[in-house]
Amino acid sequence: MADGKAPGEFDLIRLLRERQVVHPAVRLGIGDDAAILSPAAGRELLIAADMLMEGTHFTFPPLTPREAGRKALAVNLSDLAAMAAEPLAAFVTVALPRGRSASFALELHEGVLDAARPFGMSLAGGDTNAWDGPLVISVTVCGQSSAAGPVCRSGALPEDRILVTGSLGGSLSGHHASFTPRVREALTMQQTAPIHAMIDISDGLAADLHHILDESQVAAVLEAARIPLTPEAHRQATAEKPALVRALSDGEDFELLLTAAPDDAARLLALDLPGCPLTDIGSIHAGSGCQLRQADGSLIPLERSGWQHQL
Amino acid sequence: MADGKAPGEFDLIRLLRERQVVHPAVRLGIGDDAAILSPAAGRELLIAADMLMEGTHFTFPPLTPREAGRKALAVNLSDLAAMAAEPLAAFVTVALPRGRSASFALELHEGVLDAARPFGMSLAGGDTNAWDGPLVISVTVCGQSSAAGPVCRSGALPEDRILVTGSLGGSLSGHHASFTPRVREALTMQQTAPIHAMIDISDGLAADLHHILDESQVAAVLEAARIPLTPEAHRQATAEKPALVRALSDGEDFELLLTAAPDDAARLLALDLPGCPLTDIGSIHAGSGCQLRQADGSLIPLERSGWQHQL
Repeated sequence: MADGKAPGEFDLIRLLRERQVVHPAVRLGIGDDAAILSPAAGRELLIAADMLMEGTHFTFPPLTPREAGRKALAVNLSDLAAMAAEPLAAFVTVALPRGRSASFALELHEGVLDAARPFGMSLAGGDTNAWDGPLVISVTVCGQSSAAGPVCRSGALPEDRILVTGSLGGSLSGHHASFTPRVREALTMQQTAPIHAMIDISDGLAADLHHILDESQVAAVLEAARIPLTPEAHRQATAEKPALVRALSDGEDFELLLTAAPDDAARLLALDLPGCPLTDIGSIHAGSGCQLRQADGSLIPLERSGWQHQL
Repeated sequence: MADGKAPGEFDLIRLLRERQVVHPAVRLGIGDDAAILSPAAGRELLIAADMLMEGTHFTFPPLTPREAGRKALAVNLSDLAAMAAEPLAAFVTVALPRGRSASFALELHEGVLDAARPFGMSLAGGDTNAWDGPLVISVTVCGQSSAAGPVCRSGALPEDRILVTGSLGGSLSGHHASFTPRVREALTMQQTAPIHAMIDISDGLAADLHHILDESQVAAVLEAARIPLTPEAHRQATAEKPALVRALSDGEDFELLLTAAPDDAARLLALDLPGCPLTDIGSIHAGSGCQLRQADGSLIPLERSGWQHQL
């Protein structure tokens, strides 16, 4: 927050300094040129960054400033979850519309703190500037690897089972602004069995599975009948876009997609993760590309038809 | 870059993956949900973030996209320099105007790489999104402390001398877009003698000195005649705003302001820092507030009249 020039920023800094949680790994938070982090010995640092823009990622209404702040951190925490990392600190930069009330920036940051609190992480720095444009909020999160080390997209192996947390589709009707990132579930799963590859589903199941396949240089078969669908995916289903297609392509589910050896997958499926069903939806194979096994048993190619290119 | 949705972003990611420097502490850069950093054993992590907006921090022209990218990283590197940290990695999020050519994003990132290269640091992640607004670029930098540990704003002690690198004032005529952050100079100084407190001058000498005084709970006397003025400060001088006032209040100098015990200050002043004069401009005292000793020897109060409140 050192160099921010928004009116009232120093009041905001004082308020945030007073009410934030301080993670023990954060030796110095808001108030200097940089924050100082002391991760646990032998742990690696995981860092991810995402920017959300008013009019693109959300509008006011239906979202409140607090919900926008919450989402801005949550989407980043979902990236840390995908690496099986423990969140330490967030850094938040904001371009704040000049016309908005003084409480707007505070509510936005309250939302960030809402998302941070369950994980005991700090809001350790940032920068707030006023301007004449719409709201832009950029969040960078810093986490540390668990004792088992981080999980990448590149580790999927032939024979692996493909698992997914929760259920998919129709997120934009509300889930995208209220989800809890699967941080705890990722850490619990990784303590239970080795996870070979993991990603969070932001672009859509099909697109994000393709990211794993690309980085791991393997192929996959997804079982259409096993893909867990949300009630929203069913509710929004149309002839052109049935519930399954929504689950494959809607995106912003912020669930975890992972692969593990068959025995390990069985141990993961036996876990009782509160409020977080885990489902086996397919398998990894040698080769390249992705196929979808339909209800009649036939296989069809599954393109990377996620967020960027709707089916 | 994992979740970006700008058209062509995957081409940009491929290009950046190909041409970036990889710092040995960066085990995994662009291309997964998060980057993986392995700082040297026993070192702390320093993290700073700043957002720059078109129309507020720069306009096109006079700046080119490449200069804007360069500045966006350089202002953050200046924050790492102020902590005496070694830069490791940068994370860059961008809201990209839809009307701009496809090469705009690439030039912007080339500018980031220009600023990163001299320090061997990586561009390790980020997020690029297209929208209908002006350019917004947010950079988070991650560095590691040197063997002597980081330098904070809070360590100034009575009797300390106040030193400043380079010369001050008139930065907006060009220096703000072309400066080299004082990273190497900070590391060299810290190896030479203990630095008690340090900050980079972004808000203006007076305002930034007040930040040190506030955090260290001490007072200061600045010697007006010793403050090093740029040729630009002289050139832009007017009756209402003489060169000295420009040096005290213009801001965006991105020079380092530091304090050290008298003997240590003498050792620092004896250093030969190429292209970086170091000047003793005053002293720290017990108490609070800041005074300016004028040419006639008289003392006047020096308010925190930096960027936010022009004299």
